[in-house]
Amino acid sequence: MIMRELCFIGGDKRQIRVINNMAKFCPHIKIYGFDKAEEELSENVTLCDSLREAIENAEAVILPLPYTKGREMINAPFSAEEIHTGDVLRNMNEGQLLLLGKADEGINAIASLCKIKSIDYLEREELAILNAIPTAEGAIEIAMRETPYALSLSQCLILGNGKIGKVLSKMLSGLGAKVTVCVRKYKDKAYCKSMGIDSIFFSELGDRIGEYDVIFNTAPALVIGYRMLQKIRKESLIIDLASKPGGVDFETAEQMGKKVIWALSLPGEVAPETAGDFISETLINIMEEMGAV
Amino acid sequence: MIMRELCFIGGDKRQIRVINNMAKFCPHIKIYGFDKAEEELSENVTLCDSLREAIENAEAVILPLPYTKGREMINAPFSAEEIHTGDVLRNMNEGQLLLLGKADEGINAIASLCKIKSIDYLEREELAILNAIPTAEGAIEIAMRETPYALSLSQCLILGNGKIGKVLSKMLSGLGAKVTVCVRKYKDKAYCKSMGIDSIFFSELGDRIGEYDVIFNTAPALVIGYRMLQKIRKESLIIDLASKPGGVDFETAEQMGKKVIWALSLPGEVAPETAGDFISETLINIMEEMGAV
Amino acid sequence: MIMRELCFIGGDKRQIRVINNMAKFCPHIKIYGFDKAEEELSENVTLCDSLREAIENAEAVILPLPYTKGREMINAPFSAEEIHTGDVLRNMNEGQLLLLGKADEGINAIASLCKIKSIDYLEREELAILNAIPTAEGAIEIAMRETPYALSLSQCLILGNGKIGKVLSKMLSGLGAKVTVCVRKYKDKAYCKSMGIDSIFFSELGDRIGEYDVIFNTAPALVIGYRMLQKIRKESLIIDLASKPGGVDFETAEQMGKKVIWALSLPGEVAPETAGDFISETLINIMEEMGAV
Amino acid sequence: MIMRELCFIGGDKRQIRVINNMAKFCPHIKIYGFDKAEEELSENVTLCDSLREAIENAEAVILPLPYTKGREMINAPFSAEEIHTGDVLRNMNEGQLLLLGKADEGINAIASLCKIKSIDYLEREELAILNAIPTAEGAIEIAMRETPYALSLSQCLILGNGKIGKVLSKMLSGLGAKVTVCVRKYKDKAYCKSMGIDSIFFSELGDRIGEYDVIFNTAPALVIGYRMLQKIRKESLIIDLASKPGGVDFETAEQMGKKVIWALSLPGEVAPETAGDFISETLINIMEEMGAV
Repeated sequence: MIMRELCFIGGDKRQIRVINNMAKFCPHIKIYGFDKAEEELSENVTLCDSLREAIENAEAVILPLPYTKGREMINAPFSAEEIHTGDVLRNMNEGQLLLLGKADEGINAIASLCKIKSIDYLEREELAILNAIPTAEGAIEIAMRETPYALSLSQCLILGNGKIGKVLSKMLSGLGAKVTVCVRKYKDKAYCKSMGIDSIFFSELGDRIGEYDVIFNTAPALVIGYRMLQKIRKESLIIDLASKPGGVDFETAEQMGKKVIWALSLPGEVAPETAGDFISETLINIMEEMGAV
Repeated sequence: MIMRELCFIGGDKRQIRVINNMAKFCPHIKIYGFDKAEEELSENVTLCDSLREAIENAEAVILPLPYTKGREMINAPFSAEEIHTGDVLRNMNEGQLLLLGKADEGINAIASLCKIKSIDYLEREELAILNAIPTAEGAIEIAMRETPYALSLSQCLILGNGKIGKVLSKMLSGLGAKVTVCVRKYKDKAYCKSMGIDSIFFSELGDRIGEYDVIFNTAPALVIGYRMLQKIRKESLIIDLASKPGGVDFETAEQMGKKVIWALSLPGEVAPETAGDFISETLINIMEEMGAV
Repeated sequence: MIMRELCFIGGDKRQIRVINNMAKFCPHIKIYGFDKAEEELSENVTLCDSLREAIENAEAVILPLPYTKGREMINAPFSAEEIHTGDVLRNMNEGQLLLLGKADEGINAIASLCKIKSIDYLEREELAILNAIPTAEGAIEIAMRETPYALSLSQCLILGNGKIGKVLSKMLSGLGAKVTVCVRKYKDKAYCKSMGIDSIFFSELGDRIGEYDVIFNTAPALVIGYRMLQKIRKESLIIDLASKPGGVDFETAEQMGKKVIWALSLPGEVAPETAGDFISETLINIMEEMGAV
Repeated sequence: MIMRELCFIGGDKRQIRVINNMAKFCPHIKIYGFDKAEEELSENVTLCDSLREAIENAEAVILPLPYTKGREMINAPFSAEEIHTGDVLRNMNEGQLLLLGKADEGINAIASLCKIKSIDYLEREELAILNAIPTAEGAIEIAMRETPYALSLSQCLILGNGKIGKVLSKMLSGLGAKVTVCVRKYKDKAYCKSMGIDSIFFSELGDRIGEYDVIFNTAPALVIGYRMLQKIRKESLIIDLASKPGGVDFETAEQMGKKVIWALSLPGEVAPETAGDFISETLINIMEEMGAV
């Protein structure tokens, strides 16, 4: 048993998967904000009519990833009504744990004021690594779909050797593609060599970027600006996986007629079940570490 | 130099790629049936107004893959008018070579009558192997798109260890998926072992087919009938790559609510440029073997 | 049950493994020629004092791989005395099956005369493919041992894309090495491309052979003669896996100070247990096909 | 140009490679302690008769990896006489840089006293990652040599997912082996999943360790003690890659008849040239970062 009673408020398809996964271990699950998804939920999950009822006896209250869609409202696409973040916290008491994805200063401040312990599960390194899997796969799907040539025979460039870069270089070379990773640090160059993958330094990028058919950016910085865009071949495809503000000067790219796709939030998009499994796995890890299991 | 003068009649995007590729080596290329694709063609290619003009001086007349769309008409989607196969042959003379894709008894008989030497380039083994690359890649793209889970983490089954099966098992395991190949012969089991891929015999299929998330059929026989369908999990995806009549009892599958996708002619669909490159490569091989180079 | 009674005459460590494997399925196993290996044999195996006793009631008589060491004697390193091939056949009767490895015209002629059905299990394609696994692995072990640089970072060339070439290219690139396969046929070039492996034609070999650190020959022909040797770098290692007379001009290579290793019979050498498992697997396949199972 | 003048004191084959590599970039290289290796050194390297002469004008003094063999003597197998560490430092002046491998508190204290800036190049992360390549390869070579079965078909267990664990799991699965990595942290489990490699937690080790043919330890802790040894199969091979005191209870293992190989310092052993290349590459990186290039 994980925890005796859990409360879930809001979330998309992924969160429904999370709820159904947790329902296998946890005897009491109460949820709020899923009016439109009733038939997809496990039988032993209780849909509540009020936040109070859902939250009251829970050991932990779990918000989705990302927890908000802005304007202080919970991200709850399956809810008939809007759910105010403040209302959730107001219904919680000091002993309860708040688990949420992509916390910001605002919610952290309120939680702290209310003396509620909150944990951002997106900051767990295992989740970041796991999410790199569907992200990389989603990027590959896009590259396959958007090019008139076989990805497995093409020259691919990956900017960055972080979590996504590592998985992407592994998968692409596993498919048969010729992969080069563009790195900034000596240790990343060493890592690539140890994995049998070619690499170049960012300082060489200008001279080399014209060689590639598909360019995947994972670096969270404006790497592909005017000068790089000029050197990228017309037939090449650029897939930007960096979160806002992104790594490509999109406006200039469009003016120059370069093909750019900005692919955000791929895990929930291309593999909601897998993404949900990863979140529930991470929640269980957090609870295990807290000694709840 | 390959041949001094070539004539291309009809074809889709792939054939345009073929023509442009050949135009780099061959000084005189005359084509017919590409009225609607003028701007995509290389400058040194001559669009002819009549079959006679196009064929007259060519050393070889090249028809597309497949050469016909039925009813004795050339497969010529970019042509304003229909082109009759018989008209093509009637304009050829004995010394000319006819190269075409997916020849049938009908055209072979006429060619023989007209004393025209014809070669079906689709029967070249290198082309069949090369085409397995975009076919496998296309199947992977479909599997990624049509499932709510990450393909790279799923259990995949491939029925058959032929050209497509071999490439597909290599690519899928390169992505990270757990792959099992279902084989009929001892030597295919040995091949899989040598490539580090698990395999089972067709005799074990009934007991095992329920274990897989994605099932790819490459075997040209009705392998997945009523009894197999019953055992396949509801969430599983079946992708049939076998040409007509296919390897799945589609009607029954639909009645049972199983998810099946019949994916035909993938190379031209998902990677027309690569598919075109393979055809031109094969044409050059044929000419080389004939001593034309 | 495979067969009711089997007789094994002669063989090395591999054959002991074969005997012990078969003893798990077959109730009566009688052997001859293993005096010096008694303690390595399963309990339910009967060591016989005479050929007659061993052969008498067996359904099949099984000779090792290779069955002879020359001069008409059975290859029986664990036997105190020499065993004459003729004596084995003389003790067999028409109903018995003779299974042996690497049959030659001589023994086939005698067997035919004696009206004994004989099968060379080395000619089974599954065994040839399976044996390619320890052969490739043995070649890799040699290359690792004999070079002062990391194989996984080196440029490797494989001459030939047959059974051994295919496994070797897969393993070496899996290790991280840069692999090029030298082929003769278009279809082999296509196969390499489909596996993500670079390839060149034999016609290009002279221009390219100087680029490689380790050169593996699998082609059964004198590929590396004087002119090739001249172009191979001094630090390069040549490993010849071709059976006699081999693919390298060894004498000239020695005079030129080139490093060549002629590695024969690797499966029995580097992985006798695995090699034995493959033989017993093949014997079972043969019996299955004969309906004995 | 890297630095104008460098001084090398002591070292094995690897250091000779380092010296020869650096001689391609650096105009003045003076060395001491290589009397017995004269013919292996580049022409433009100056062998000095005294420490003073060698050190005098150098911008950096470079000691080998490891810099000492104990008892305050430089590790200098090619030197006719012993070289005292103190003598080296005494001949240096404040402006000079000391680069050495595997520094200890002793030498750091003296260097600090003498106001000499010293850098331990073994602590550079890129070198640690690069060294994992020949280490993993050496471990594979040992496993191939010491087992009577094919490594590429065996069940392998790797204890630890650090630098060596990562490369080893990649290479072994690239060879075709079934690989499981034993990890302690959630993020390492996630990494393995992202690379398509199976993993277990250390808490499961006791129940699972009996399943594996080859067990590689990379964890710097006594992981394989009496209780684990009891569960390891007799035919299994244990290869310990952890530095002293190692991860296996060797004495008990021997008493129990388990096969253990303690493989230390593999890079210098199995691939001295590659190991030398990595050291020189790292030295250049250090100099580049210091602005010397």
